[in-house]
Amino acid sequence: MKLLRYLLIFVPISIIGDLLHVSPTLLFVLSALAIIPLAGIMGEATEEISFYSGPRIGGFLNATFGNATELIIAFFALKAGLFEVVKASIAGSVIGNILLVLGLSMLVGGMKFKNQTFNKQSVEVSSSMLLFAVIGLTIPAIFTHTVAADLLNTRYEGLSVIVAIIMFGIYILSLYFSFYTHKDIYFVEPDEGAVAKWSLKKAIMVLIAATVILGIESEIFVGAVEPMTSALGLSEFFVGIIIVPIIGNAAEHSTAVVMAYKNKMDVAVEIAIGSSLQMVLFVTPVLIFLSLLFTPMSIVFNEFELVALIFSVLIANRVAIDGESNWLEGVQLLAVYAIIAVSFFIL
Amino acid sequence: MKLLRYLLIFVPISIIGDLLHVSPTLLFVLSALAIIPLAGIMGEATEEISFYSGPRIGGFLNATFGNATELIIAFFALKAGLFEVVKASIAGSVIGNILLVLGLSMLVGGMKFKNQTFNKQSVEVSSSMLLFAVIGLTIPAIFTHTVAADLLNTRYEGLSVIVAIIMFGIYILSLYFSFYTHKDIYFVEPDEGAVAKWSLKKAIMVLIAATVILGIESEIFVGAVEPMTSALGLSEFFVGIIIVPIIGNAAEHSTAVVMAYKNKMDVAVEIAIGSSLQMVLFVTPVLIFLSLLFTPMSIVFNEFELVALIFSVLIANRVAIDGESNWLEGVQLLAVYAIIAVSFFIL
Amino acid sequence: MKLLRYLLIFVPISIIGDLLHVSPTLLFVLSALAIIPLAGIMGEATEEISFYSGPRIGGFLNATFGNATELIIAFFALKAGLFEVVKASIAGSVIGNILLVLGLSMLVGGMKFKNQTFNKQSVEVSSSMLLFAVIGLTIPAIFTHTVAADLLNTRYEGLSVIVAIIMFGIYILSLYFSFYTHKDIYFVEPDEGAVAKWSLKKAIMVLIAATVILGIESEIFVGAVEPMTSALGLSEFFVGIIIVPIIGNAAEHSTAVVMAYKNKMDVAVEIAIGSSLQMVLFVTPVLIFLSLLFTPMSIVFNEFELVALIFSVLIANRVAIDGESNWLEGVQLLAVYAIIAVSFFIL
Repeated sequence: MKLLRYLLIFVPISIIGDLLHVSPTLLFVLSALAIIPLAGIMGEATEEISFYSGPRIGGFLNATFGNATELIIAFFALKAGLFEVVKASIAGSVIGNILLVLGLSMLVGGMKFKNQTFNKQSVEVSSSMLLFAVIGLTIPAIFTHTVAADLLNTRYEGLSVIVAIIMFGIYILSLYFSFYTHKDIYFVEPDEGAVAKWSLKKAIMVLIAATVILGIESEIFVGAVEPMTSALGLSEFFVGIIIVPIIGNAAEHSTAVVMAYKNKMDVAVEIAIGSSLQMVLFVTPVLIFLSLLFTPMSIVFNEFELVALIFSVLIANRVAIDGESNWLEGVQLLAVYAIIAVSFFIL
Repeated sequence: MKLLRYLLIFVPISIIGDLLHVSPTLLFVLSALAIIPLAGIMGEATEEISFYSGPRIGGFLNATFGNATELIIAFFALKAGLFEVVKASIAGSVIGNILLVLGLSMLVGGMKFKNQTFNKQSVEVSSSMLLFAVIGLTIPAIFTHTVAADLLNTRYEGLSVIVAIIMFGIYILSLYFSFYTHKDIYFVEPDEGAVAKWSLKKAIMVLIAATVILGIESEIFVGAVEPMTSALGLSEFFVGIIIVPIIGNAAEHSTAVVMAYKNKMDVAVEIAIGSSLQMVLFVTPVLIFLSLLFTPMSIVFNEFELVALIFSVLIANRVAIDGESNWLEGVQLLAVYAIIAVSFFIL
Repeated sequence: MKLLRYLLIFVPISIIGDLLHVSPTLLFVLSALAIIPLAGIMGEATEEISFYSGPRIGGFLNATFGNATELIIAFFALKAGLFEVVKASIAGSVIGNILLVLGLSMLVGGMKFKNQTFNKQSVEVSSSMLLFAVIGLTIPAIFTHTVAADLLNTRYEGLSVIVAIIMFGIYILSLYFSFYTHKDIYFVEPDEGAVAKWSLKKAIMVLIAATVILGIESEIFVGAVEPMTSALGLSEFFVGIIIVPIIGNAAEHSTAVVMAYKNKMDVAVEIAIGSSLQMVLFVTPVLIFLSLLFTPMSIVFNEFELVALIFSVLIANRVAIDGESNWLEGVQLLAVYAIIAVSFFIL
């Protein structure tokens, strides 16, 4: 985790690169390397703040800022009209969490411990919620794909906004669920020795600074996508579904893997599934709402994204029901991720 | 439940409306309001008869008449050649049971009880049967959608009849299963204080009268569908998938919700899943057979219905495996139902 | 099992029939009847060898030779350029194992024992692996179906080889998993009274002889497919998906049913799911590799195969999670198989 800090050196480097108009491909790599530690610092600052705010507001902050990086990158992509990148990064974040993060956690944890169990009720609740949420999210897309698309374009927007409102409503209710009516499910034993390392003022200042710099880096990153992809012959879709989620989640991912290595497999699973759930219920509707400020973005995913989303959710549920993992299961999830990535790359 | 009785006033009103040739939209609403209490009375009369017939025949009668309303409405729609309405109402009934009834039950029950459990073996058996049944039902449709449709139209009928025979065979065997070889799974503790309120003769007379009047009302209802939809710009498909199932199942639905409120969640889940199962294994084949009297109806569902059926069944199985419910799960099922309904309405 | 031996008479009959140039349809039937007992003898010889080799190598031999018959038939079909037959037989073998073998086992076992349980951990592991493996296998196909196919033909081969390498890698790792790191999961109590019936030399000689003769018969069988199907108006696809898997698995199938009849339902389920898993992880990549010697075969399944594969895997996982079976569940699986077979036959 701490090691990621050294990547902060890429913040000034990427900004200088931007001013010097270096090649878009280089700028893309530099800004990506700068985003990774900034996302980590935002997570850390949020955790520090929750020491002062108490567990309830702290939980809320963690839940809300957990996917802030993806949200900020997507915001600039939205502003630049890169709808394909935005939607691909939503789907890619879910796939990445379920296959890459969970797979890596199971592999790393499973190499140390023969079988790891995670019969926590919260995993059950999150995984079935994720199933329902993804079904809700994909229904408009599936329906519109089977209808002559040109007849309906004007109706997409309205439908997308309605679905976004419903999803956001569920998100609000799920906060009420986890912080009030069923907070015992999510109860985490307080880490006895844990104390705030930063003062509240410092934590808030760091959070604000990291968010501002992240915004600058995201704008550089997004600005480099189009020239970089056309220079390298990559598709914007590939960037959205594979690269953006890896950058945005790097810090979170390493936490999950570390937890698995400490045999806290339930925390690792909870991070992966919970983060996916948040992408669907919080980030997606917020992006739909924000797009109304520019050009309205429809919620209609393409067939690749649909298939990948639905398969990921089936796998997540199978894993959660199983309640047990081993290294070979981890390898298999990673293999599915590799096949998806290669298919996207080749096609 | 008793309150629904007051709706009987719409029986004479709708018949008078029909004679006076009121607008189809008004007639549609009036006959719909008349059908709701008639369906309830049919259920009540069947239950009274089972006091006299003993539990075995009683169980059979309940199973057979459970979806009688949908069957009667569909019969008249079939006669009128409204195949789209018939097939949509089959799919709509399954969706409605799994999402609307189960969702409402979980919400209402979950607002009173924090967590409700239903680890009954019968739910396990029904939900896996529903998965297999829906897969069997949807396979011909999926296969025909991927083949050049015009080449195959003549072969649909034969395939539909064969699938209907297989489904009906499974239905007969499932009765044998639940009343003979595995009747202990479905054993329901007899309600100690329960006695027949009606004489057997009265119960039979009421059942016959309700069925006859329901037939009249269904004919009025179905006759109003086409002019009403073209007047309001609604699709017949929307009527079939959303409105018919709500009307036909209103009485049953209220029972499930009441049971959930009494913390008998296993009964509520059993009603929802069992009713869906019966639609697939009993009502659907009977309709295919009946259609041979008029114009043969194929068993080929459209893509919307397929997606909705398959997703509903996945949700039903996830819920059954979970064995536990809470208010938020209820809200999520209702949200998926709302998204489906809105999508159908807009598209 | 022993009774199948009498079918060996069809080995000389089919070879004479081939020399006399009898009708392709007759030759097809004769060679099919000859293949069934040869497959059984190969299995028996492999088991005898494992008495001498010890359980570890024996397990490996059983795993590798378990689907040798399908592999040999597919090899000659590959050589003859019958790609449709090869791919259909891969999908058909998975469907046949999950629906036909498991269905028959549950029916036969369930007629003797009311409820059969199989809560073995190995079934859990295999069924979730099968889910991941089939998702991995079908992703390239699903993706290519949604892209303009003509643009991409040249890229199929490369993708197919990459997926085959990944699948084969998982296969090697799964052997390591089951023979080293997690061998206790698969521990089978040694049959106390069991002794080798054959000498090691005899067993090896029988295995070689059976393999050679099977090769001859497979060549006759494959050679008869094309003229037979065009004579009878059958599709090669039907032959591949229904007939080849039944012939290739007859011996294994009878073992599973006998195990179910002896109330060893976990063995029956393990055979069905394990054999499917091996088709996907071992036979499929080997066939892709072998096809590079002739004309490269892509791993892209058609829509029918995809749907059948995915549904079979969902059913297998539902059955495994259930951990319990009864005769009606068996009937339902057989009914789904019948519907698939009839659909393929008619379409």
